Amino acid sequence: MPLEKHGKTWSSRNIVLSDLKKRNALSLAMLRSLQSDLLHEAESKDLRVIIISAEGPVFSSGHDLKELTDERSPDYHTKVFQTCSEVMLLIQKLPVPVIAMVNGLATAAGCQLVASCDIAVASDKSSFATPGVNIGLFCSTPGVALGRAVPRKVALEMLFTGEPISAQEALLHGLLSKVVPEEQLEEETMRIAKKIASLSRPVVSLGKATFYRQLPQDLQTAYHLTSQTMVDNVALKDGQEGIKAFIQKRKPIWSQ
Amino acid sequence: MPLEKHGKTWSSRNIVLSDLKKRNALSLAMLRSLQSDLLHEAESKDLRVIIISAEGPVFSSGHDLKELTDERSPDYHTKVFQTCSEVMLLIQKLPVPVIAMVNGLATAAGCQLVASCDIAVASDKSSFATPGVNIGLFCSTPGVALGRAVPRKVALEMLFTGEPISAQEALLHGLLSKVVPEEQLEEETMRIAKKIASLSRPVVSLGKATFYRQLPQDLQTAYHLTSQTMVDNVALKDGQEGIKAFIQKRKPIWSQ
Amino acid sequence: MPLEKHGKTWSSRNIVLSDLKKRNALSLAMLRSLQSDLLHEAESKDLRVIIISAEGPVFSSGHDLKELTDERSPDYHTKVFQTCSEVMLLIQKLPVPVIAMVNGLATAAGCQLVASCDIAVASDKSSFATPGVNIGLFCSTPGVALGRAVPRKVALEMLFTGEPISAQEALLHGLLSKVVPEEQLEEETMRIAKKIASLSRPVVSLGKATFYRQLPQDLQTAYHLTSQTMVDNVALKDGQEGIKAFIQKRKPIWSQ
Repeated sequence: MPLEKHGKTWSSRNIVLSDLKKRNALSLAMLRSLQSDLLHEAESKDLRVIIISAEGPVFSSGHDLKELTDERSPDYHTKVFQTCSEVMLLIQKLPVPVIAMVNGLATAAGCQLVASCDIAVASDKSSFATPGVNIGLFCSTPGVALGRAVPRKVALEMLFTGEPISAQEALLHGLLSKVVPEEQLEEETMRIAKKIASLSRPVVSLGKATFYRQLPQDLQTAYHLTSQTMVDNVALKDGQEGIKAFIQKRKPIWSQ
Repeated sequence: MPLEKHGKTWSSRNIVLSDLKKRNALSLAMLRSLQSDLLHEAESKDLRVIIISAEGPVFSSGHDLKELTDERSPDYHTKVFQTCSEVMLLIQKLPVPVIAMVNGLATAAGCQLVASCDIAVASDKSSFATPGVNIGLFCSTPGVALGRAVPRKVALEMLFTGEPISAQEALLHGLLSKVVPEEQLEEETMRIAKKIASLSRPVVSLGKATFYRQLPQDLQTAYHLTSQTMVDNVALKDGQEGIKAFIQKRKPIWSQ
Repeated sequence: MPLEKHGKTWSSRNIVLSDLKKRNALSLAMLRSLQSDLLHEAESKDLRVIIISAEGPVFSSGHDLKELTDERSPDYHTKVFQTCSEVMLLIQKLPVPVIAMVNGLATAAGCQLVASCDIAVASDKSSFATPGVNIGLFCSTPGVALGRAVPRKVALEMLFTGEPISAQEALLHGLLSKVVPEEQLEEETMRIAKKIASLSRPVVSLGKATFYRQLPQDLQTAYHLTSQTMVDNVALKDGQEGIKAFIQKRKPIWSQ
């Protein structure tokens, strides 16, 4: 999906979950495909933003339960959950923002995927649940992402009852960045993607990495780290270009 | 309060604060009674969920101030606050979810008790405050639970001004899980309790312990811990039963 | 701004950002002035509360970009960000609450200043943004305060898109304590300030320091610390006075 800017072409990348029969389950194959796509895309210097969306009425139903019976070995189960965790961690480590575009139901690891993206835009018909407890499999890994996105009482009620929350509730509690009518979902997501694509990639990349690094630190350590980041950012070619363009009241021209 | 399920009887336990004359103050005697009840109930293998409620218009007014004058020794004061902290920590450590059912005013350590439960359901006439500062006793221990339940600016305004917030505001900011009209309070609380009582106790217990353990960890450590928890959960008898029942489109039959 | 209480005079201090031509930019000179004012005021034993407000339609536009070009040395840039971080850390360390009174736009380090205050009251026409990314300078230091005030998806969308949020959204997500119509802004802020000014300074001071100290700790450590704080607080002259006044149904008379 190339986006036009300043006469040059920049790219966003749309990764689409597409396994309608399995309600876009995050099977080991799907997780590996997602991981490989994300790693591959991150190497492209033109890439500015990644959008993860899905085909059909279910964004993702979470793990493929058929892979979790005792017909598979514990080693296989370990591989499933490790790969899933790697994908979630990878999203934070990528040098570009990752946007979840959700139009429908996101449950269990599907809800975790939404919570793990940097930005999440959803249609107002979407809903979110961590229903593992209903089938004897508590959503402990989804709870990692959910517990860091919403207040703990919201997370615990979702985890203990398995009941869904609406898109509006998800927005209210911090799980989503934006909720729009279904017919505006793509437009609004692309608007945000285009905005990010118009920015300097080295600056966005430095900012994203620093944000997640400082968040768990104590305040003094966090300011020590980020003050240095600001000095480094000012010294970047795009830092100087941006500041000077602003002072000169012109549009900046980014190095990348 | 026995709940019927699959022809077997499961139990929820209702612990009721009942000291109307003292507005359900958390006196040392009340705290010890609460602690002993919680410890006792946790030993019952049939127990699925605990509900803490109160008689009268005040859920709890917090510590019994008569126990905090200098007519009592510093050792006594220490005992009061230590026991209170032990009760709050115990709620998180219990193997079953604890629901606060609030119908009225919850202040100081009473507000802390609500904030410390896993789930909190309140009637819309309820309100919440940490007014210790008005009487020269800053709500520092309530601030521990409150500061982890709501955004810090909400917590600080409550702590510095002592002014109450409404049930709706408490819901909005994450202190409550649900707000309902007074006449539906018991019904809604029981609905959630029954839902939890229909689940596998070992699974809920593993999930609760893991959630609180991973929450303060850094993301990588949290995923390392919870991935292993998922593998262990899949290997549980109830994990396999739940997954297979789901695949076979039948109701699961839990071991406990 | 002296406030009357019990026949004695207590003081709140109003620090006003006043550099209309630079839209109240936090230049190094402005930051040093703010730092010096805060340090100076904190020495006054009569002081009860500090209010930070601003003249003109912009609360603060953040750093002075002219100080961040390569016409200044990296050492100068370092000094700017270090001083800014020192001011934000100082606000938390002050022995009295600091209230931001916002009437207009607060961007970048200006938004960080609002997020760093203990309490923030804003008029409903105010808005908040971290737009540094637009000029190639990611708001990494503002992200420290913002990321601890609002859910991370809210913070990340603000940081990645640079787009403003309204006062109502800021309230909803925890960046503000109160939103009122413009004509009530001063009245509401003064109401809160007077309330705080009517309290015991040693008690408020102990409570504020303890709150920020316990917040990043694990639950057990936090309760260990705050239980001791409660015992110390009870033993304070104002602790005993407040408790006894409450029991005797009279107004307390604080030592300070």
